Amino acid sequence: MERRESGAIRVLQVGLGPIGLGVARQLAARPGFNLVGAVDPRPDLVGRDLAEVCGLVGAGGSAGTVDGDLASALQALRPDAAVVCTSSGLERVAPTLEACLAAGAAVVSTTEELAYPWRERPDLARRLDEAARRAGRALLGVGVNPGFAMDALPLVLTAVCERVDKVTVRRIQNAAYRRLPFQQKIGAGLTPEAFAERVATGQVRHVGLAESIGMIAAALGWQLDEITDEIAPKIADGPVASDQLAVEAGQVCGLIQTGTGRQNGQVRIRLEMEAYLGAPESYDEVEIEGSPPLRSRVEGGIHGDIATVAITVNAIPRAVAAPPGLLTVKDLPPAYCWVG
Amino acid sequence: MERRESGAIRVLQVGLGPIGLGVARQLAARPGFNLVGAVDPRPDLVGRDLAEVCGLVGAGGSAGTVDGDLASALQALRPDAAVVCTSSGLERVAPTLEACLAAGAAVVSTTEELAYPWRERPDLARRLDEAARRAGRALLGVGVNPGFAMDALPLVLTAVCERVDKVTVRRIQNAAYRRLPFQQKIGAGLTPEAFAERVATGQVRHVGLAESIGMIAAALGWQLDEITDEIAPKIADGPVASDQLAVEAGQVCGLIQTGTGRQNGQVRIRLEMEAYLGAPESYDEVEIEGSPPLRSRVEGGIHGDIATVAITVNAIPRAVAAPPGLLTVKDLPPAYCWVG
Repeated sequence: MERRESGAIRVLQVGLGPIGLGVARQLAARPGFNLVGAVDPRPDLVGRDLAEVCGLVGAGGSAGTVDGDLASALQALRPDAAVVCTSSGLERVAPTLEACLAAGAAVVSTTEELAYPWRERPDLARRLDEAARRAGRALLGVGVNPGFAMDALPLVLTAVCERVDKVTVRRIQNAAYRRLPFQQKIGAGLTPEAFAERVATGQVRHVGLAESIGMIAAALGWQLDEITDEIAPKIADGPVASDQLAVEAGQVCGLIQTGTGRQNGQVRIRLEMEAYLGAPESYDEVEIEGSPPLRSRVEGGIHGDIATVAITVNAIPRAVAAPPGLLTVKDLPPAYCWVG
Repeated sequence: MERRESGAIRVLQVGLGPIGLGVARQLAARPGFNLVGAVDPRPDLVGRDLAEVCGLVGAGGSAGTVDGDLASALQALRPDAAVVCTSSGLERVAPTLEACLAAGAAVVSTTEELAYPWRERPDLARRLDEAARRAGRALLGVGVNPGFAMDALPLVLTAVCERVDKVTVRRIQNAAYRRLPFQQKIGAGLTPEAFAERVATGQVRHVGLAESIGMIAAALGWQLDEITDEIAPKIADGPVASDQLAVEAGQVCGLIQTGTGRQNGQVRIRLEMEAYLGAPESYDEVEIEGSPPLRSRVEGGIHGDIATVAITVNAIPRAVAAPPGLLTVKDLPPAYCWVG
């Protein structure tokens, strides 16, 4: 038989926002993982029973408590792996990642800018790579987007090509079925003026297109001259609503964000993301121009929140088994939904 | 910057049938590879200039000659990697694989039964694993099917699932556009009686469904009780033809082959392959029942011959960099179309 790893992986969850809480719940429920505790400084969470916070009371077994302090949790629990779900911004998350690595944990994080930081933040990437190597552990940025739908999945499809001329990915989502913070993040309900202001301050924005483009280019061996990332409002033609939000005609119902990667003036990678209330259909489409050409489509799209939580959990065994250093998902075998 | 390997990989092509010849052509044309020679015992090929055999005369550079003897080619050329495209049957190919490994070459092979031999041929798998470890080299079975469309691709899609209940893959091909040997392999033009005879003797059969099912189950951590692999003829309703072949109504125009993997009596993996002249559309579809459910479709399907050659070439750098032993594609990062 093939060789298998055995023994549950002891995991510390860092950050209990919507995604972190979802990860904690899956870790507590899925075989192969042992959720040993969580860290979150929110006063309403500190000191509480983690199983209770996860809504798993009575399910049996212990998942530890919520610690307000990362250092004390790491020292007390010595986890095999830490899952960090605190912020999109890598500069802000870096000290947390470094602390987890220094404590000997492999680290998986949903920080969007960690998905492929080598091009956009090379100094920080080097610093984190060195921290991970010193610790003898892997550090891995994961997620659905960036991390899968617009980078890893199109890359996988290039495996059957002898030549790739251009990669186009379209991720179209009807945001009416996503949670309210997501609807707000895409600017739904704003006036066009307020939308423009929030784009200018970085409050309305999907983080990750530049990272996805950088990852695709690196994996295919392409030297890009330029990466662009542009945000435009989607204006509602007529009134449109979700359960949480109503948008009038002329207001913003979501965003259209487009990333491009150019080589010698030619667009070789184009990522089109549209997320708005009332999108007639949701789908994830990959189009590869090359030999052979290829068009792949996931009807209904890849469900944002469940999928993000799932791919994060599925990536933990990969990170634990990986060689030390800052890795990106393109460097590892895919994170299958393995039943431990 | 990320670390990169450098220097072209020196490759020996073993077997110059349609697929092997295609591999040799790509190796001669693509950056990052150095085709150092080929082996094929056919008298019309032995001793000939390989560039000429590949139809690349005048392209400049040397690709060596065609050697009739594997041992002498290995000894003279000492390749970094060998690509073996000689037969679907692993028992028959094993001595060739072992000779290449013993000469210090990483080995990639399109032998269908090598895609995942651990379940169907565990003793042979162990023997090859030991040979690869002794040689300090990796041995990897590759291809579009098995190796991608019905195993690696659906596995990649499970990355976004927290739970997988069932995996169904449908590969539907209009065989009219494939080469004649493929049309003959699927029984096109036979009477139903002749089809049944050739199925009984193993002449009409797609090799690989059991291997794909074994790979999926191993990657997802499923213990299957039973794998089935059944072949039925597709009977032409009316006359149908390809450029090479005409089929009358009532004759066989291709095959329908279905593989299943059961756990506790339930079908958890179902692979449906239909290849026949006149199929109204070609596509590759993956359906995952689970959380979230997922349906992915490649319209037009993944082109058989170009794609098989491309994925074989793309896998060579993976095999060269991989740890020693018998590996399967699920164990490695996907073989992107990398420009070396």
